[in-house]
Amino acid sequence: MKTRDRILETARLLFNEEGLAQVSTNRVAAELDISPGNLHYHFKRKEDLVAWLLRRFAETLRPFGDAHRSVEALDDLWVSMHLALEAVDHYRFLLRDVDYLLREFPALLRPMRELTAQRVTTMRSVLSKLLDTGVIAATDEQLDTLALHTILASTAWHSFENLLPPPQPPAPSGIHAAAYHLLVLLSPYVDEESRHYLAYLRSRYAK
Amino acid sequence: MKTRDRILETARLLFNEEGLAQVSTNRVAAELDISPGNLHYHFKRKEDLVAWLLRRFAETLRPFGDAHRSVEALDDLWVSMHLALEAVDHYRFLLRDVDYLLREFPALLRPMRELTAQRVTTMRSVLSKLLDTGVIAATDEQLDTLALHTILASTAWHSFENLLPPPQPPAPSGIHAAAYHLLVLLSPYVDEESRHYLAYLRSRYAK
Repeated sequence: MKTRDRILETARLLFNEEGLAQVSTNRVAAELDISPGNLHYHFKRKEDLVAWLLRRFAETLRPFGDAHRSVEALDDLWVSMHLALEAVDHYRFLLRDVDYLLREFPALLRPMRELTAQRVTTMRSVLSKLLDTGVIAATDEQLDTLALHTILASTAWHSFENLLPPPQPPAPSGIHAAAYHLLVLLSPYVDEESRHYLAYLRSRYAK
Repeated sequence: MKTRDRILETARLLFNEEGLAQVSTNRVAAELDISPGNLHYHFKRKEDLVAWLLRRFAETLRPFGDAHRSVEALDDLWVSMHLALEAVDHYRFLLRDVDYLLREFPALLRPMRELTAQRVTTMRSVLSKLLDTGVIAATDEQLDTLALHTILASTAWHSFENLLPPPQPPAPSGIHAAAYHLLVLLSPYVDEESRHYLAYLRSRYAK
């Protein structure tokens, strides 16, 4: 792995585990056993490191954005949603402390907003496709809200879960809990045939 | 107003406006034109100030918790929800930066969790009452998720809205947007008679 990629990967892990505010670039260099000067050669400021990780997060979500063109069944929605939730989990430091992030690095406001808007638009397209193929029935208003809430829930889940009593098995936790609840939110809109399949998908998270 | 209450009110306003991390107790004292020693006499540490504001937030929500005993119609749900969202807005600094809050003041984890669990339970009771009176029809699973998502959305709304492009009027913003979307989430479950009333309630936010 190239030094540049090793730096990004180590920074991501440390930011996720210890929090963006707690981890300095010197700490990342120490963890990698490289000099601060070497790290500085690749990334001038902490902001550059974060901006690059944000770009990678957006790239990870891109296939999900393209996938909506081929959405035909509930399964396609579920796969895309699950992959998106995994990406969110992978880069959770970007979403867990949004206020801090935007205060420290105001230049990231624009790309963060573009990414969120794009995620909502993509989710809305997926839902529209399912409407077209007759898998779900809903008003435009309901689909707008579902799309927004799906992105809201996946964005805010990690912070919110902190405020809940720890889940008792077999209750799902982490992104599995987020996915489970999003499938339930979708449940009133699906047709009879897909209803059983949706219940099956939910059951996979609830054990 | 007693000095103690003036301190709490000024701290709340400053925390909301400038962020919990940015405002020191000395800053609160300066804003009130009292000595740091005077403030210290009332609140030994910043944590005490925050803990008292959290207690007041919980008190503000209590009538909402008791109200569910008398829920009979959609209007009761809407009033309770709206009042709860206003309380959330009033104490938004407690919810906007949860990670920072719990890292700085770990002793607040327990009361924060108790409050969130209580809010979810209350919302679930309100929904159960509406089920009993026939205003909505849904499975237990759907009501559990609706209750959780209502609290999730009201908790996370302020942070999430930061990540969206600024809403264009007549689109609602702030707690009005949160309330509007929660009413839409509820829409597939309401009976025919209440459907028109729900649409009317939504329209009040969407202009």
